[in-house]
Amino acid sequence: MNFEFQNPTKIIFGAGTIARLGEVVSEYGKKAMIVTGGGSVKRTGAFDKAVESLKSAGLAYVECTDVEPNPRITSVARGAKIAKDEGCDVIIALGGGSTMDAAKVMGAAALYDGNPWDMILHGQEEVYIPTETLPVITVPTLAATGSEANCGAVITNDETKIKSFIQIPLLFPKVALVDPELTVSVPQNHSAYGVCDIITHVMEGYFNGVDGTPIQDRFAEGVIINAIEYGRKAVANDENLEARAHVQWASIVALNGWVQAGVHMLAPMHMIEHALSAHHDLTHGAGLAIVGPAWMRFAAKYRPERFAQFAQRVFGLSSEGKDALTLGMEGIDAYETFLREIGCPTTLSEVNITGELFEQYAKDAALVVRDEDGKLLGRPPMTTEDIVEVLKSAL
Amino acid sequence: MNFEFQNPTKIIFGAGTIARLGEVVSEYGKKAMIVTGGGSVKRTGAFDKAVESLKSAGLAYVECTDVEPNPRITSVARGAKIAKDEGCDVIIALGGGSTMDAAKVMGAAALYDGNPWDMILHGQEEVYIPTETLPVITVPTLAATGSEANCGAVITNDETKIKSFIQIPLLFPKVALVDPELTVSVPQNHSAYGVCDIITHVMEGYFNGVDGTPIQDRFAEGVIINAIEYGRKAVANDENLEARAHVQWASIVALNGWVQAGVHMLAPMHMIEHALSAHHDLTHGAGLAIVGPAWMRFAAKYRPERFAQFAQRVFGLSSEGKDALTLGMEGIDAYETFLREIGCPTTLSEVNITGELFEQYAKDAALVVRDEDGKLLGRPPMTTEDIVEVLKSAL
Repeated sequence: MNFEFQNPTKIIFGAGTIARLGEVVSEYGKKAMIVTGGGSVKRTGAFDKAVESLKSAGLAYVECTDVEPNPRITSVARGAKIAKDEGCDVIIALGGGSTMDAAKVMGAAALYDGNPWDMILHGQEEVYIPTETLPVITVPTLAATGSEANCGAVITNDETKIKSFIQIPLLFPKVALVDPELTVSVPQNHSAYGVCDIITHVMEGYFNGVDGTPIQDRFAEGVIINAIEYGRKAVANDENLEARAHVQWASIVALNGWVQAGVHMLAPMHMIEHALSAHHDLTHGAGLAIVGPAWMRFAAKYRPERFAQFAQRVFGLSSEGKDALTLGMEGIDAYETFLREIGCPTTLSEVNITGELFEQYAKDAALVVRDEDGKLLGRPPMTTEDIVEVLKSAL
Repeated sequence: MNFEFQNPTKIIFGAGTIARLGEVVSEYGKKAMIVTGGGSVKRTGAFDKAVESLKSAGLAYVECTDVEPNPRITSVARGAKIAKDEGCDVIIALGGGSTMDAAKVMGAAALYDGNPWDMILHGQEEVYIPTETLPVITVPTLAATGSEANCGAVITNDETKIKSFIQIPLLFPKVALVDPELTVSVPQNHSAYGVCDIITHVMEGYFNGVDGTPIQDRFAEGVIINAIEYGRKAVANDENLEARAHVQWASIVALNGWVQAGVHMLAPMHMIEHALSAHHDLTHGAGLAIVGPAWMRFAAKYRPERFAQFAQRVFGLSSEGKDALTLGMEGIDAYETFLREIGCPTTLSEVNITGELFEQYAKDAALVVRDEDGKLLGRPPMTTEDIVEVLKSAL
């Protein structure tokens, strides 16, 4: 029951708040680097709004475009070089989780002369832990990762096909400027994947945390209940700003630490998914929709009461005449049905992944967060055979 | 739906963490002022543990003792002078809400040459807003106010009998060092009052916030459900460390902003209670147990659906065959029954307060947080007649 918590990121939330970007950035410098993804922010007008606000505040900017989904360490190095060469004071991440994660690591990499991959945990002998960073302002255009208000980032090494992470307090953004209007244009499938990502963040701690965290349980259940209700509405009608706003807020609180405080969360579903999307062109949230229910059916056998609680409190299922495992499995079925309803894939075959590399994925999944026996940490810890079994069940 | 949120306080939570006080304080200076209340921390050994940790870290300290319940501005001025005269770098608040509130204002007052009452909102023409403070470390010995991890403080002017507040980001403590073992010695009645305070903090936003905050609703209900469950256990067996820890954690999240983010909370129950305890020797939490149910029965008539939701989700009451107001009133009855079970007073006569000064209390309650017509802000806004009506119903 001992833990520490601190999240210094300032959240500015609300429709239209992107107009305040210049005011916010001017507290941290005069020249910004705007990091973007594949260009959707230019098509939707978000980029123009951002630039207009910067110009009104008399700020200069340069761009780092084309950060890919599952962002690569090469893009991080490229962005860090631009920020350094151009003498930027501050970094603005305008985009989804990939853009924000890459920008957060660029901030530290801009002040480090070595290879930024040294910072990403990937089983190396000595990890480089950065101690300074350019200030980062996040402006999310997708409700999903919660990266806007936490200190983590997931980066892929395309050469070694390893997707892994850094998570240190230094990487908390200074400000998360969260304007749900920016998410109105997100396509249906990516909105749905985002909802799955949000729910899975909360589930990781809920199913893989320590016992005896009853307030955090209620927080987690509350986020999931609302992500389901408003996620369904946001996917059904992408112009529903109220639903978008609730989903956006859910994405922040799902992974800014409020739900996880004292939980000592582990994240086996994420570790398995990262191994998949390191090898395949697979959106993270879609991968989680496949791995999630498969992992849950595996884990429920070891901890049926917890899954029964999930079924009762999140889906309102009745326990009458059922043992905990039966009830728990019904809850997982209900969750999978929801994922399919909003348009997520729930099998590997839907995304054309076959069993050939299962052993490799299993090995990669347990590369970093593992116990002394090499098992992937979680409840329960998983051998590579266990991971392969879960993947097979998702075919 | 537009709001800002930031809470930079670092929380270090867990049994035995008081042993880390010296380590924590040494990040902020070499000489500390320890602020304490009526002396219970010396009887329980908490003070000795704190001093031992400071000495191990090679730190010097002076004391500011005898901060009273409903702390007075004269005590704040006294503490500020000690900190200034003794050249303290950092302030440690070791005690309950009164001690912590006073210490937070002492921090700013130590760097201000004027009268610290200038900082407390009390209807003055010009409010002095401090811009610097000594760093403050809070070490709560009672689970109640949540003052350990928020930026508010409530101070009483004994001459004018006005009890009011300051709430500015500058007053966030640097660190809240929260050791639930320190609360094991709290007497049964004060433990119960603390539980009522925790629940009322959450209720203020839940019943007096804006519409359309469904995630915050779930957070609020979760905190109340757990404060009831573990509050009952902590009061029944004061050595139950697990229950104490859950209540302590509830007290933090009840008022560190997580539950209230985006809610635009108002606090009429607190405003009315403050008017009572400014005039009478009444523990804040006990006053809230009296004002709370009386105010709720008044407010339920204006917003029955919200009180029905409270009855259903917090107490699991069935809506079958009842209109919203009937169900809502049943929820209030259930809450009042709980308060009586744990030993809280729920009528003014139990604490020897008569109706003589009702008009004065009503006027004081609406002194600061009022609308253009002078009504006390809340849902609904209250005239002085409304406040008197609520007080009469609590006789």
